[in-house]
Amino acid sequence: MTNDARPDSADKLAYQGPLTGYQLSLLLRIANKPGMLGRVTTLIGRHGADIHNIDIALAEPDFILREFSIFCPDETRANALVAALGETAGVEVQHASDRTFQLHRHGKIEIRNKVPVTTHADLSHVYTPGVGRVSMAIHENPEAAWSLTVKSNTVAVVTDGTAVLGLGDIGPEAAMPVMEGKAMLFKSFGAIDAWPLCLDTKDPDEIVQIVKAVAPGFGGILLEDISAPRCFEIEERLKAELDIPVFHDDQHGTAVVVLAALINALKIVKKRPEDLKIVLIGVGASGVACSKIMMNFGVRNIIGFDRSGAVYRGRDNLNVAKEWFADHTNPENFQGSMADALVGADIFLGLSGPRMVTGEQVARMNDDAIVFALANPEPEIRPELIPSDGPVRVIATGRSDYPNQVNNVLCFPGLFRGALDARARNITEEMKIAAARAIAEAIPGDQLSEDYILPSVFNDSVGEGVARAVRDEAIRTGDSRERGSRIFV
Amino acid sequence: MTNDARPDSADKLAYQGPLTGYQLSLLLRIANKPGMLGRVTTLIGRHGADIHNIDIALAEPDFILREFSIFCPDETRANALVAALGETAGVEVQHASDRTFQLHRHGKIEIRNKVPVTTHADLSHVYTPGVGRVSMAIHENPEAAWSLTVKSNTVAVVTDGTAVLGLGDIGPEAAMPVMEGKAMLFKSFGAIDAWPLCLDTKDPDEIVQIVKAVAPGFGGILLEDISAPRCFEIEERLKAELDIPVFHDDQHGTAVVVLAALINALKIVKKRPEDLKIVLIGVGASGVACSKIMMNFGVRNIIGFDRSGAVYRGRDNLNVAKEWFADHTNPENFQGSMADALVGADIFLGLSGPRMVTGEQVARMNDDAIVFALANPEPEIRPELIPSDGPVRVIATGRSDYPNQVNNVLCFPGLFRGALDARARNITEEMKIAAARAIAEAIPGDQLSEDYILPSVFNDSVGEGVARAVRDEAIRTGDSRERGSRIFV
Repeated sequence: MTNDARPDSADKLAYQGPLTGYQLSLLLRIANKPGMLGRVTTLIGRHGADIHNIDIALAEPDFILREFSIFCPDETRANALVAALGETAGVEVQHASDRTFQLHRHGKIEIRNKVPVTTHADLSHVYTPGVGRVSMAIHENPEAAWSLTVKSNTVAVVTDGTAVLGLGDIGPEAAMPVMEGKAMLFKSFGAIDAWPLCLDTKDPDEIVQIVKAVAPGFGGILLEDISAPRCFEIEERLKAELDIPVFHDDQHGTAVVVLAALINALKIVKKRPEDLKIVLIGVGASGVACSKIMMNFGVRNIIGFDRSGAVYRGRDNLNVAKEWFADHTNPENFQGSMADALVGADIFLGLSGPRMVTGEQVARMNDDAIVFALANPEPEIRPELIPSDGPVRVIATGRSDYPNQVNNVLCFPGLFRGALDARARNITEEMKIAAARAIAEAIPGDQLSEDYILPSVFNDSVGEGVARAVRDEAIRTGDSRERGSRIFV
Repeated sequence: MTNDARPDSADKLAYQGPLTGYQLSLLLRIANKPGMLGRVTTLIGRHGADIHNIDIALAEPDFILREFSIFCPDETRANALVAALGETAGVEVQHASDRTFQLHRHGKIEIRNKVPVTTHADLSHVYTPGVGRVSMAIHENPEAAWSLTVKSNTVAVVTDGTAVLGLGDIGPEAAMPVMEGKAMLFKSFGAIDAWPLCLDTKDPDEIVQIVKAVAPGFGGILLEDISAPRCFEIEERLKAELDIPVFHDDQHGTAVVVLAALINALKIVKKRPEDLKIVLIGVGASGVACSKIMMNFGVRNIIGFDRSGAVYRGRDNLNVAKEWFADHTNPENFQGSMADALVGADIFLGLSGPRMVTGEQVARMNDDAIVFALANPEPEIRPELIPSDGPVRVIATGRSDYPNQVNNVLCFPGLFRGALDARARNITEEMKIAAARAIAEAIPGDQLSEDYILPSVFNDSVGEGVARAVRDEAIRTGDSRERGSRIFV
């Protein structure tokens, strides 16, 4: 989700504690004197934490190295406890980390060999001299790289670290855990081998040049967390210049899942896309992409708002992407407030920041209204603040603790699985819409309800359905590659 | 091995068949008519091949899809058989590949998740929202990337495909199988996660810029199969500009193993480095690097030869690397022939091409001479052509089917293991010499012999010994990183 209207990362972080919990692991060097252990456990108890386990790692005459596993109520008290322990005479905190940090120790992904290398015969097949024949086969026919290298199952996850989650421009090193996470999701949900490339440059020309240069070894490129408007130019140029799929997840991943949610929500409220009035708040990367895919699906009337208000033709201060947006949306060139635009609107789509809209405002929407409040973790409006006796029937958020979570994981693993299976040259609008339909169809018609318009990310049929739909669409439209010769001797 | 003096890739390829063998797998669509199977098996027998197994994949009224596993004597007859089958009426070859190609199907490496992603709790730790805290911890302290991302165990294997094995400039796609193989060796012999980046550019500026840009996610860079003299400039600039180890394996990997072989050979012939006269043929990337490391080890007298003859001060037609070489070797500025230089020489070091020296020439070397004929797969002189009653006592080659194989696998996995364990900023000359000593010491003194100066690549103690020596050397000289805070809450 982007946060075009009001980014507020401090606000976001504050919400992350309770969701992950604090299973704290402490390694304490404690003076070997009577009463010391009691002093430590008392301190832990005073911070509201429960001790789960105590182990001795090393016992010396003058000190004991003890490992504590404890449950802490929240981050603030965990920090306070670690600080208090550090100030206690006779205690030295050697290591402290919670479960989330423990899982990140030395990274979350690794490389494995598909075949063992334990004999000279193995070596002669997978490395010299045998590998020379494989290289020459590819040299003579570069398309054979799809059969004989990792290319056919590999995606590069590329970022410059400028728009990571809601945290902003935190740099390539700090982006690594997120990109490793993305690689894990590729593997878990798409059986795809993805490797993160976090680039130490923000220059669009350089990013384009680098991605083009590394492309021979990859079957697809996922662009991730690159700030707008640079992300538009980078993606467009790479799509034009590369012969493998390039997909900016923040734009199109979100757009595909939003469209899937829209498809199922419209089934419930029985409205047609061409009749909808949609109010969009947040005209960033994902807002523009959502608008494009919805218009390709038949939507005609979208009014977008950014920090400066309604986006309309002739307004000052529009970048290239927003100028395109102004030219293609807002058919009546509405220039009023968001509150006024919401009167009679069928859909509120929020891709902005926390608390952008009130219960009173959404109460003035059209009958059978739909609210997608996707700012994460704090939505544009909390579902419980939407009047239950008002017009809003279907609500989705970006959070996993409310029904109908709009989660990009529903899209990108299956989408790339299908694209790789087709050896697709690109990902077209049609392939994206096919993916959205497949996500929507993962919920059988008789199970569809206001609280169940999007399937769980752990629903296996989603990835398979999306992959099949995307692959078939790629083959249908000729965006796939021929398999070529399978004779290698 | 480089092939500076006389590259001859056709010659090299011709030697690769017998070493890998031809276990051929055929998928044949055969007309369902009496006598057809017999016709096929007869054809196979006529090509000198043995059938190991026949399976039916599909049986239809008009055709049968049969899978044959057969052993073929060599590549030529395998090709002839596949061609003959293709010309047989009623037979269609749907797939044909030998074991080497089968092992390369869709690549040899994959990515695995270190922890499972099967519940929303898993997701909240390894991805959003928990990952945001990990990213912020790195943003606040970039060194924490060594603790909290794959960086600490990850090496990028970077090539531009311009000097792949002895095959020359075959391009980035064709280089992939070799680089994947390198990644496998990193994992098998160093427990290191390496990922291949085969670059679609030959421009040194671009290569430097790309490697610098991707560096945040890696703990080291292995440059591989980049042609000379570009490889010198690329490595030097990257070493100067990056704070992680950069190592061009063709230069320094070879140099380390050659030095290890030299150390043990000198123990056998009881000579001192400062007394040696060394004749080097092949003044390419590895020849220059071998000379440097030998001189750092105490060697004083090296005379190098390239295609134009002896390399001496004042000679025409020297590139920057060879000018450096001329300035630092050949103390008497010898300008004669290689045959003349070999008279009285203690060591012949070949890093060039096939059959560059004769038995008569090496017979005129000094007593207790050493011949390292490392061109691969066809050495500068075959060991059996070296007179057994002559002065040559110790012989090493690059081949696995003679004693004393100079194989870079002895060096790079352990070297990078040690560098990563020390979180080293670079790989110094001292670390390389420490690695060479560790390789040499993997053979206990009482087991050392003319036929056993280098350990097997499958000797586990090599990688461990090299890693320990390199790590200790990095820590000793201050090229390592402090571990920093281990408090993450």
